[in-house]
Amino acid sequence: MAQPGPSYTVALHLEVPASQKAIATLVDRASSTGAIVNGVDVADADGDVLIVDLTADTRDSAHRQELVEALRSLEGVTVHNVGDSTFLAHVGGKLEIAPRTAIRNRRDLARVYTPGVARVCKAIHDHPERARHLTIKKNTVAVVTDGTAVLGLGDIGPAAAMPVMEGKAVLFKQFGDVDAWPVALDTKDPDEIVSIVKAIAPAYGGINLEDIAAPKCFDIEERLKAELGIPVFHDDQHGTAIVTLAALINALKIVDKRIEDVRIVLSGVGAAGTAIAKLLMAHGARDIVGYGRDGALDGHNTEGMNQHRRWLAENTNPRHVTGSLKEGLVGADVFIGVSSGNLLQPEDLDVMADNPIVFAMANPVPEVDPVGTAGRAAVLATGRSDFPNQINNVLVFPGLFRGLLDTGLTDISMNLMRAAATGIAGVIAEAELSPVYIIPGAFDTRVAGAVAEAVRQFANA
Amino acid sequence: MAQPGPSYTVALHLEVPASQKAIATLVDRASSTGAIVNGVDVADADGDVLIVDLTADTRDSAHRQELVEALRSLEGVTVHNVGDSTFLAHVGGKLEIAPRTAIRNRRDLARVYTPGVARVCKAIHDHPERARHLTIKKNTVAVVTDGTAVLGLGDIGPAAAMPVMEGKAVLFKQFGDVDAWPVALDTKDPDEIVSIVKAIAPAYGGINLEDIAAPKCFDIEERLKAELGIPVFHDDQHGTAIVTLAALINALKIVDKRIEDVRIVLSGVGAAGTAIAKLLMAHGARDIVGYGRDGALDGHNTEGMNQHRRWLAENTNPRHVTGSLKEGLVGADVFIGVSSGNLLQPEDLDVMADNPIVFAMANPVPEVDPVGTAGRAAVLATGRSDFPNQINNVLVFPGLFRGLLDTGLTDISMNLMRAAATGIAGVIAEAELSPVYIIPGAFDTRVAGAVAEAVRQFANA
Repeated sequence: MAQPGPSYTVALHLEVPASQKAIATLVDRASSTGAIVNGVDVADADGDVLIVDLTADTRDSAHRQELVEALRSLEGVTVHNVGDSTFLAHVGGKLEIAPRTAIRNRRDLARVYTPGVARVCKAIHDHPERARHLTIKKNTVAVVTDGTAVLGLGDIGPAAAMPVMEGKAVLFKQFGDVDAWPVALDTKDPDEIVSIVKAIAPAYGGINLEDIAAPKCFDIEERLKAELGIPVFHDDQHGTAIVTLAALINALKIVDKRIEDVRIVLSGVGAAGTAIAKLLMAHGARDIVGYGRDGALDGHNTEGMNQHRRWLAENTNPRHVTGSLKEGLVGADVFIGVSSGNLLQPEDLDVMADNPIVFAMANPVPEVDPVGTAGRAAVLATGRSDFPNQINNVLVFPGLFRGLLDTGLTDISMNLMRAAATGIAGVIAEAELSPVYIIPGAFDTRVAGAVAEAVRQFANA
Repeated sequence: MAQPGPSYTVALHLEVPASQKAIATLVDRASSTGAIVNGVDVADADGDVLIVDLTADTRDSAHRQELVEALRSLEGVTVHNVGDSTFLAHVGGKLEIAPRTAIRNRRDLARVYTPGVARVCKAIHDHPERARHLTIKKNTVAVVTDGTAVLGLGDIGPAAAMPVMEGKAVLFKQFGDVDAWPVALDTKDPDEIVSIVKAIAPAYGGINLEDIAAPKCFDIEERLKAELGIPVFHDDQHGTAIVTLAALINALKIVDKRIEDVRIVLSGVGAAGTAIAKLLMAHGARDIVGYGRDGALDGHNTEGMNQHRRWLAENTNPRHVTGSLKEGLVGADVFIGVSSGNLLQPEDLDVMADNPIVFAMANPVPEVDPVGTAGRAAVLATGRSDFPNQINNVLVFPGLFRGLLDTGLTDISMNLMRAAATGIAGVIAEAELSPVYIIPGAFDTRVAGAVAEAVRQFANA
């Protein structure tokens, strides 16, 4: 069963008798439902009666309802209002636009707006490259989605995707000091998406594609890369690939193996899986076998595959392995999962080579149970925050775009991505490395700077 | 000759001898070129030498160069660096994106981003109307341009238009607490502009069209109004019309005439002129004659006119006046100019009716010289900030969109625009009204609130 957590925090506005006993009973009763009480704050006192705000983590909507009913049943308690902290945090949206230069008087107005602004416009018209210096293009990235592959929710459309895009923009600003703006497009047509992103590009110094379904995401990215003069990045592909490589670099140090020598089983051959395979191969990996729903991908039978899956089939699996994922684990050094939950049992891993590395990154349920795997893998990583070694894209995109905007670099090449991964891996000193600490935490403030620095050094090399 | 002003402020980084005399000579020499010295700040002192920053307003680039040369010629003075305050104010752009909810720890992350955000996405997917409450749509407006009619600069393209759009966004935030975002489109095709604005609309609660050339601006606006469920406003048309009506309402009080009775000469029949005519007629005006480059517009000869100019020709000029603008002034009560500079001599106005009202709004050079006109018109207004009664769109758009976002009203009808104009006019009490105070100043903080309140009352009526 899920644990109570902050994504289901409830804020109850209650009336209770003004006695120690009543409050204690209130908290006791709340806790007895399994809710974790964060706090009880007195909002108002009126003689015999207290108005209090009780905040508690619950598991889900049903649990929240159970909590409300439990408190309602107490004598003298009235539940006036039930607030949901997650929704409250979203009211009015999560971003605002702040002027960097205030207009307080006529002098400011003349400088920041008319008539002075006309000279700046003219300078950009005469020297287009000055836009990067004199407008928000210098520090601004578009977070572009069509809402077709949002989190685990699938095709929920652009309006419903907005809270994710806004959250992403918050992370961009907070970790990378990059101004990111949500562009949620009400079209699913790849041609239209490409032409719209090209048309809006004058305001932006970079494009972060987000939660766009495969396989169209590949083509959209490739065409934009070819046609725009600013960096284009599909986070679901390359963000995941970079952070996976970073984790693998450190995990291989733990087990003292070289990437050139290991057998890698890759479960999931969608956008993320394909990008991971390409980046790992660019970094030296030679023996990757990709597994989709029908078993091992192999160059012998590529009929009906789209060009990206065909690439994978033709360029991986050098030993022409066939069969199921489970069979493929025999003798494998590394398991990387970007597929779906509970595909494997922990004991399935027992056939792997000595000191196996397991990255079970499906979210929220990993490919194999982390608790059961803990004794079996030499290194275990997941996509979850409640186990060690969370492989999280937030380690990549803020610092990567910080570096790109700082240097003006436009081509996010394989070698640049390798440099970024190496930068993330290097945040943990050799002496600190351990099986439960191969990748820095999401809130490690050193990471974005290290990634940006890796990009800057790559640009200057 | 133009006066030195803040849009040409220069910041000089200088080395001078450390003596009172040297500094006094410096300022004296700067002033002798006609520059207005704002300040001399010591940046560093090193024995016999001072490093100072001298800031001064100049007229233009030539004057700035003259100033620099004059100071360079002084004994012991070295000019190290010449900064342009207007450009400095634009470095890095004028906007940044600020998180309204910080992500400081895992609890925040779970609420603002994954996994909690998924519930908010799902809620919007299930109830699309909740997007207006739970995303930035609640308070965000797109400032859309294709860069084809920017200020007096014309078709300078989207990148060069960005400083104006950013400045507009600063004004939106500062006066209306509206989050406005620049959308500068790299296309001039009206069909494409319409489809792009529709596609990006999920993130926005309103669309402000800006600096798009006529006549395509009319069609783009009409189609977007019909096809989008959020308010669409073309500031160059309707912002100008609303503030003009506001000024006229108060000017008519000064001369004690009714809008139904006055003869109005309108110079300029582009986007702004057309919108002004329509709004003034909706408010009661009956006798408007529009003048283009070829003289009076009349319904008798509409061949080759686009539909908007034809509408004007067929619905104005009830007395079928023909001839030139100058001839049309005979007996006119009101002159409204949204055309170009120096079309008239002040003495041309002498043929107007008693107590003529003159709004000469061409910028930066009015249709008729304001100094020469001052004795002739009962009320004189311009588009300039250095004469009384500046007719400025900034009085309209922040408060208008504040009211629209607050109420959820989507149709910017003639009656709503009349209400907004009446709201602006009402900021000046009858007792305060005077020929030099018919319209509040750009920095009058009461205006945006009054406009927003007018919109709210209109919505509730």
